[in-house]
Amino acid sequence: MKTVHVHLGERGYDILIAPGLLEKAGDLFLKNRVGKRIFVVANDDVFQLYGQSLLEQLRERFEATEILIPDGEKHKNLVTVENIYTYLIAQGADRDATLVALGGGVTGDIVGFAAATFLRGIRYIQVPTTLVSQVDSSVGGKTGVNYHLAKNMIGAFYQPHLVYIDPNTLSSLPEREFQSGLYEVVKYGLIYDAEFLSYLDCHLEAIKQRDPAILEQVIGRCCEIKAEITSLDERESDLRRILNFGHTFAHALEAVNAFQGITHGEAVGYGMVAATRLSRSKGLLKPEQAEHIEGVVRKIGPLPSIEDVSAERMLESMERDKKRKEGQIMVVLLKEIGRTLIQPGGEAEISEIWEELRSAC
Amino acid sequence: MKTVHVHLGERGYDILIAPGLLEKAGDLFLKNRVGKRIFVVANDDVFQLYGQSLLEQLRERFEATEILIPDGEKHKNLVTVENIYTYLIAQGADRDATLVALGGGVTGDIVGFAAATFLRGIRYIQVPTTLVSQVDSSVGGKTGVNYHLAKNMIGAFYQPHLVYIDPNTLSSLPEREFQSGLYEVVKYGLIYDAEFLSYLDCHLEAIKQRDPAILEQVIGRCCEIKAEITSLDERESDLRRILNFGHTFAHALEAVNAFQGITHGEAVGYGMVAATRLSRSKGLLKPEQAEHIEGVVRKIGPLPSIEDVSAERMLESMERDKKRKEGQIMVVLLKEIGRTLIQPGGEAEISEIWEELRSAC
Repeated sequence: MKTVHVHLGERGYDILIAPGLLEKAGDLFLKNRVGKRIFVVANDDVFQLYGQSLLEQLRERFEATEILIPDGEKHKNLVTVENIYTYLIAQGADRDATLVALGGGVTGDIVGFAAATFLRGIRYIQVPTTLVSQVDSSVGGKTGVNYHLAKNMIGAFYQPHLVYIDPNTLSSLPEREFQSGLYEVVKYGLIYDAEFLSYLDCHLEAIKQRDPAILEQVIGRCCEIKAEITSLDERESDLRRILNFGHTFAHALEAVNAFQGITHGEAVGYGMVAATRLSRSKGLLKPEQAEHIEGVVRKIGPLPSIEDVSAERMLESMERDKKRKEGQIMVVLLKEIGRTLIQPGGEAEISEIWEELRSAC
Repeated sequence: MKTVHVHLGERGYDILIAPGLLEKAGDLFLKNRVGKRIFVVANDDVFQLYGQSLLEQLRERFEATEILIPDGEKHKNLVTVENIYTYLIAQGADRDATLVALGGGVTGDIVGFAAATFLRGIRYIQVPTTLVSQVDSSVGGKTGVNYHLAKNMIGAFYQPHLVYIDPNTLSSLPEREFQSGLYEVVKYGLIYDAEFLSYLDCHLEAIKQRDPAILEQVIGRCCEIKAEITSLDERESDLRRILNFGHTFAHALEAVNAFQGITHGEAVGYGMVAATRLSRSKGLLKPEQAEHIEGVVRKIGPLPSIEDVSAERMLESMERDKKRKEGQIMVVLLKEIGRTLIQPGGEAEISEIWEELRSAC
């Protein structure tokens, strides 16, 4: 078992990673000082796959109950959060209760926010079951829901009590969703660790085969990097923004597509290619490094077409993005693999890069 | 001007207290590093009294707008919070926006929670205009709203950027509301500072006359005590519970009365008398001290009748109270003036004390 500690003083917590971990939840939750009442929150599908057996595990040591929530981003809203509150109140949950977020990033965000705000904050445990949530959203304490059309508008920084990752859950993930997670994995190498990027490049086939031992290493390294960054900058003031590498483009692309037809990971894939090209065109990154990076990203898998997404629509969307500061569109750029800087992108340059990218589709 | 710092590291903040402070808000907010967009949230009445002139002050230095919310505890709910979100989004508020909570505790709780959860947390400034909120709810970072019938069920611990207290606002407070605040003032002496209790006892008439210079001292000392306690225990794990002196009874009494006919302060007044008598009956507090304490509390003003509130109903309500732990009703008790301890109250003893108290009404 790999253990990564997130250093945040009294808000610090462990990330446990091992194939088969879900089968040991009763003992390991107990060892990690969880109160006696546990509510496992999941959507129907995930509950069928992993929830029922997790509950059985937990019931040997705790009072454990499930709370089912509807599936999908469109239910990531205050209505779902309120339904969780209502259930908790009906069950007489007190400050010692623990919520378990079993599922992908949407479930984690919703449950984290419910935990952050119920009785001014109760314990929650992230049990991410998708690759994206295992390497990204389950670590760092970002919680929240969408509000009308605005993504993650309402939320809180609120750290989990524990992150509990079983790479075996990835075996049930559809190919496209697994690949989408790999873009976020590669991102860590690009922004923080050139050696890790080489490792990923060399082991890409074994990773795609979902070899559990290699996945434990890969997920572990991603969590270490994210833990390091978020413990230095809990509330996203500066350093943490490098995690948004590729995301200025990705968020815009997702918004233009109304979150249809492209996954978040795929949008990040395009975003990283665009940010890499922008870094090269600004003379920050050497052309051969830029080509190498694009090669690694492209090797992950095919990206859906973006030929009908014009640069004009991308820019319009970026204007509305909340990461926009002082009238400038800020972009995370690369100086070399593992070294970033944040600069205004420049509308004309962004536009040119995007048109070049989509016309090659 | 009296300045009290709340020591909470990077979440630390100042409490400024002075008669006439509202007229200097433009300069003092600027000195305290507030972003350029400010939203002043208040109900209609408070906005008429202080909001309009505050906005004029602020507009000399900032972009300032008002957000009006409906008055009263029954609007302390997620609907009001959502209306604030919607307004902020419509106005294009970003992470650099600042909310100002201008009003009593209800406004402070709502605005603090909106600030805690909008874009995962933006700055807010407490500008409390009632005595209770100046000495209690504006300091300490407890924010939240009611959920259906459950008080403060949804909320967050989220510290303000600044607490900004102008005792001159108390001149517009109805007599009964001002007196209600005095119960909370006396509470600080009882739980923490015997000398302060003597000071209050000696100066009660001048305080009741609302002498601004004396109020600055009194409010300042209350804030110091609350700041000391909350900085040692931000998330109410233990020490902070002594602030609940009188509140086990008060919450039950308010709930039994469905929050009608008795103010929170008055309920705390009864609660402190009951807790004092309980402390004496348990042999913790000397009879002459208990009598002295009850005398000080009673001198504040007349308390409304509780003769139709039976001990049975009080106990039923306490059972439901979230402060109940491990099947016991926990009560903050006094060993002497300024020294507390927390113990199970004991249902029979609570019942006896309450019946004695109400039959004397």
